[in-house]
Amino acid sequence: MEKYISLAHGDGGELSHRLIRDVFIEAFGDGNAAMFDAASVAISASKIAVTTDSFVIKPIFFPEGSIGKLAVAGTVNDLAVSGAKPVYLTCGFVIEEGFPIADLRRIVTDMANEARKTGVKIVAGDTKVVERGCADGVYINTTGIGVYEANIGCSLEFEEGDAIIVSGTIGDHGIAVLAARGELGITVPITSDCASLNRMLEMVLQHTEGVRIMRDPTRGGLATTLVEIAEDFNLTMKINELDLPVKKEVHGVCDLLGFDPLYIANEGKAIIVVAANEKDKVIDLLREFPEGKDAVVIGSIIGKDKGQLLLETPLGSKRLLTRLSGTMFPRIC
Amino acid sequence: MEKYISLAHGDGGELSHRLIRDVFIEAFGDGNAAMFDAASVAISASKIAVTTDSFVIKPIFFPEGSIGKLAVAGTVNDLAVSGAKPVYLTCGFVIEEGFPIADLRRIVTDMANEARKTGVKIVAGDTKVVERGCADGVYINTTGIGVYEANIGCSLEFEEGDAIIVSGTIGDHGIAVLAARGELGITVPITSDCASLNRMLEMVLQHTEGVRIMRDPTRGGLATTLVEIAEDFNLTMKINELDLPVKKEVHGVCDLLGFDPLYIANEGKAIIVVAANEKDKVIDLLREFPEGKDAVVIGSIIGKDKGQLLLETPLGSKRLLTRLSGTMFPRIC
Repeated sequence: MEKYISLAHGDGGELSHRLIRDVFIEAFGDGNAAMFDAASVAISASKIAVTTDSFVIKPIFFPEGSIGKLAVAGTVNDLAVSGAKPVYLTCGFVIEEGFPIADLRRIVTDMANEARKTGVKIVAGDTKVVERGCADGVYINTTGIGVYEANIGCSLEFEEGDAIIVSGTIGDHGIAVLAARGELGITVPITSDCASLNRMLEMVLQHTEGVRIMRDPTRGGLATTLVEIAEDFNLTMKINELDLPVKKEVHGVCDLLGFDPLYIANEGKAIIVVAANEKDKVIDLLREFPEGKDAVVIGSIIGKDKGQLLLETPLGSKRLLTRLSGTMFPRIC
Repeated sequence: MEKYISLAHGDGGELSHRLIRDVFIEAFGDGNAAMFDAASVAISASKIAVTTDSFVIKPIFFPEGSIGKLAVAGTVNDLAVSGAKPVYLTCGFVIEEGFPIADLRRIVTDMANEARKTGVKIVAGDTKVVERGCADGVYINTTGIGVYEANIGCSLEFEEGDAIIVSGTIGDHGIAVLAARGELGITVPITSDCASLNRMLEMVLQHTEGVRIMRDPTRGGLATTLVEIAEDFNLTMKINELDLPVKKEVHGVCDLLGFDPLYIANEGKAIIVVAANEKDKVIDLLREFPEGKDAVVIGSIIGKDKGQLLLETPLGSKRLLTRLSGTMFPRIC
């Protein structure tokens, strides 16, 4: 087989056919997706969850992850935090002419492995090739379909006193990717937290009641995601700076460079808002999983009228947090 | 609002939020997609069709179409030819820094209009921004979900004598786009055939029996798509050169520049293989629609053993056709 992607790999002819057969079907297996324009798949629910995400991360390989792993985990997590069980995934590739086919295989293998781990099936795909200089290596879109199981889900009904939980340390992904890009000017021993959370979150939903909402704090970081929840549901939320789980290496980099870990992207973390009397149970469940071992309560809902996120500092003062504004980090996912 | 896309429009913060609100929700309407990571939608079938496609067409605006119209029609057609009724669509944008927001609005409006026309609902979206020089304007992925209706569909069972129908003239899209790119060095009065075919194909499936398979001959053109069918089902298919519907302007360009209309992309055409005794009825039904007014029988299945596509020339000789090989036209869709 050729060593590099050429424009002809994207024109729908013989080379496209071979690329699909020798790289994609080789890794993903041959459903009916290969033969038809649309895959026909069974669904056993009257309500499904649908989500889509494009991945343009740079670099495409980074400590403990790749654009391939991320493209599966990211979309699986979007389904999982909505309370759905991820079942099917599609993938659309835009590849730059000259891209090494060995790298494509590595990416596709990562996708296949992560899909297997999470239990989703990749059922349809598409490949387009653009001229040299018209993309930066490879961009991947994944779209996910999940099903809602009866009597399991998030209530979206909040009460004062509800606890805000985060499933682990924040900022790891963003700092790891910036470091891998060589943009920090320093070497940092941090790996991305990129991981699929569906099994862990499914366990939480199955074994507890009182989960109000779950979200994954990716682009924009923990603060932006919490501001969105606060505004969408008109809640006053308060988090405590001293309770935020931040690895000391991440803290160090942030102190040094003037970043705020609250606004740095995560790719393997969930925020869970839960009734106060269930918070310990949720923490215990999360800590049974490697991805949830640092789970902790970081704050609570203190009002139901303002749509605000407050940060209580170690000195006891309260600071109003807003969405991320201005570009901190392009192409972090 | 700003005039151009900046990296901050893609970082998940305040500008991303405003872009989604002021451009996407403005055009697509506010489902629950805006508020949650995954849209929750109803589904009324035990089998669904799933398809994905990325669009990298150049130029993004062309005679009688745009990347926006194409991104909806292309995915709708992939669902429709599989026999499914398109119901939901997701869209993922990768946008180059500096892209005019007015152009983005135009594209999104085209998508909303085409979605309304076809009856699909756009339920989830995603926007990523890459640095100047890392994409060529905008790339769009659409993923479509369709439902299969009971007792309606393609049998995938073929018989000798089955008729091969194409729903109209071939090569229009490819030639129109090449001309719009200025690559032909000549002006050609040809517009793209870009159109959603779901209503027309639904009518055919509802009112006839004996439809074996339907496909849309996009990248690679009519010949490549027919070769795929022939190989996938081990059929010997024969088409007659004299019966191929080709506009005289397309013929003229092809003759002049050495292109073969059989390998040029279409974006509003369907191939339908149907039992011989139903072919007239299918042609009549197709011709009731503007997109099907030039529908015609172009050949038949002459054997069930070889996986070959033959072209009968005006002189009566038979030529074996293969998939498109080598790049004729990059970024035609």
